[in-house]
Amino acid sequence: MLPTIEWRGEYIRMIDQRKIPAKLEWYICRGYKDVIKAIRVMVIRGAPAIGVAAAMGLALGAKVIRTNSYASFERQFRKMAEEMTRARPTAVNLKWAVDRMGLLVQRMAGVPVDQIKKALLWESEKILAEDIDINRRIGQHGLKLVPKESTILTHCNAGSLATGGYGTALGVIRAAHEAGKKVEVIADETRPWLQGLRLTAFELMQDNIPVTVIADSAAGYLMRQRRIDLVITGADRIAVNGDVANKIGTYQVAVLAKENGIPFYVAAPLSTIDLKIRSGEMIPVEEREGREIYCFGKRQVGPVGVNAFNPAFDITPGKYVKAIITEQGLIRPPYLREIREIFHRK
Amino acid sequence: MLPTIEWRGEYIRMIDQRKIPAKLEWYICRGYKDVIKAIRVMVIRGAPAIGVAAAMGLALGAKVIRTNSYASFERQFRKMAEEMTRARPTAVNLKWAVDRMGLLVQRMAGVPVDQIKKALLWESEKILAEDIDINRRIGQHGLKLVPKESTILTHCNAGSLATGGYGTALGVIRAAHEAGKKVEVIADETRPWLQGLRLTAFELMQDNIPVTVIADSAAGYLMRQRRIDLVITGADRIAVNGDVANKIGTYQVAVLAKENGIPFYVAAPLSTIDLKIRSGEMIPVEEREGREIYCFGKRQVGPVGVNAFNPAFDITPGKYVKAIITEQGLIRPPYLREIREIFHRK
Repeated sequence: MLPTIEWRGEYIRMIDQRKIPAKLEWYICRGYKDVIKAIRVMVIRGAPAIGVAAAMGLALGAKVIRTNSYASFERQFRKMAEEMTRARPTAVNLKWAVDRMGLLVQRMAGVPVDQIKKALLWESEKILAEDIDINRRIGQHGLKLVPKESTILTHCNAGSLATGGYGTALGVIRAAHEAGKKVEVIADETRPWLQGLRLTAFELMQDNIPVTVIADSAAGYLMRQRRIDLVITGADRIAVNGDVANKIGTYQVAVLAKENGIPFYVAAPLSTIDLKIRSGEMIPVEEREGREIYCFGKRQVGPVGVNAFNPAFDITPGKYVKAIITEQGLIRPPYLREIREIFHRK
Repeated sequence: MLPTIEWRGEYIRMIDQRKIPAKLEWYICRGYKDVIKAIRVMVIRGAPAIGVAAAMGLALGAKVIRTNSYASFERQFRKMAEEMTRARPTAVNLKWAVDRMGLLVQRMAGVPVDQIKKALLWESEKILAEDIDINRRIGQHGLKLVPKESTILTHCNAGSLATGGYGTALGVIRAAHEAGKKVEVIADETRPWLQGLRLTAFELMQDNIPVTVIADSAAGYLMRQRRIDLVITGADRIAVNGDVANKIGTYQVAVLAKENGIPFYVAAPLSTIDLKIRSGEMIPVEEREGREIYCFGKRQVGPVGVNAFNPAFDITPGKYVKAIITEQGLIRPPYLREIREIFHRK
């Protein structure tokens, strides 16, 4: 796989995920505002990936702040960070990465501005490298949950393209495949943006992992026919009670899995858990433009003037989640206690 | 609304539903093979509508059978009827209409062939007229289930375009609207063919009934937020135990409705009930081409060479169905007993 996002000296480049698989094109960001735009219009998407992008974007923005005064630098950095945080509301990894960069700036109070700029650059590269490492560890922990021969349903794209690399849900699948297990993937196409059809299928085909795409509405049919052994998805934000915000449709998949006695797992780094959020209802759910529903590209498909409602995420109550697969191992219910414990240990 | 299908002297014309809402075009059928093609490629779709089309198609085909011998006519008609039955496998209304036309031919054994041809023509017009009347009666019975102010979720298109006119599920919604109830409709877009976005929204907008389209995967989210009061769908075939074959995704909607304590109703004429089918597993489920998933029109959207699985229907077990709304009133569980009783009375 090509890197989802990377530094190229003076600029950042990322794969333009709006164009996959038709075209493999780089999207170039020369300033932090380019990164904000890239996140907003979904050139790059996926909770961990937009965290990495936000960190890199802030390092990029910091480079051109023209001042030698720490106070002035810090003030300008903070403004930029606030702007970055607002790029998309649901995935907490974005905020987590912004906060981590901000903390570094605060810790370096009084240090010459040039050194802080360099440190921010290194930090953004560290966040990227750590994310890939975390995903590999998620893969190793998740591996145990995958039977030797199994068909795994996944929703949206929680793969290499959604992260620094390797993937969370697809990381588990990759790890199982690399360990010699015979895995097959059923990918929900994931309307309206078709991440499953365009990105997940693309990634898995590159790795020679068998994949079949279905309409989102066929998942239940396959489950009822006992053609799915387990479900693994990623997450955009997890509340301390185990409620999971993820791509719209995840809740439906989880309910159907429960109804059919199929385990439903969420694979995510610990940075996806928001300790400030007690339950899923508190997570802000982004609503995107209706035209994602009634247009295909520039072409109007629905009747002119039709109303559409387009929430980008939904909340899956923790009771439907059999385990959360993290880089530190599995978290199982009761989530409230287990999540507190894991962060206490940290 | 324009008529979904109608006789125009020597030919049949139907609205080409593949092109709605972008274009309103007639599709002309001058022979029964044109009708078979129209059903197969979904120029016309919807269980009751393809029943009407099949009947008209047989009358059209019968007209050009060149013989004065009843035996020869009957043989040629039977061959044509068998061909027509195979046009699409899941909706039983097609077979029902073909059988009804065949029965007429048998009853008229010995009558001059020209008179049989005329009778077949009348019969096909009668089936169309009856279907519209049946839908209005379904609407009147279903009306009672709709609260004065309510938001109704529907899946696919069970409207005027899916029937001779007026609609089954949308017939109930139309009847409620006409009775002065304040109804709002949430229409699942219904991938891959987008009947909800293209047809249901189009029909309801023409009737000034408020409608909002959502991705199929957002239905559960809305239910959990208590923004749906009831669900009404159509049906392609109903087993005597109440299991319902309908557009892929119906099963998911039904499970989610149950999980959220929302009533799930099916609106269908009695001709949709297949007394030969004891349970849903016996209903043949059509699988359509994968390209309906990975292409948009002629444009490849998924990776080249991707696998797709595209079942066109699914089975909703009767236990999820609160009532079946028919022209003779509501059928409620236990379905096995109630369905037998209704057909015994008939």
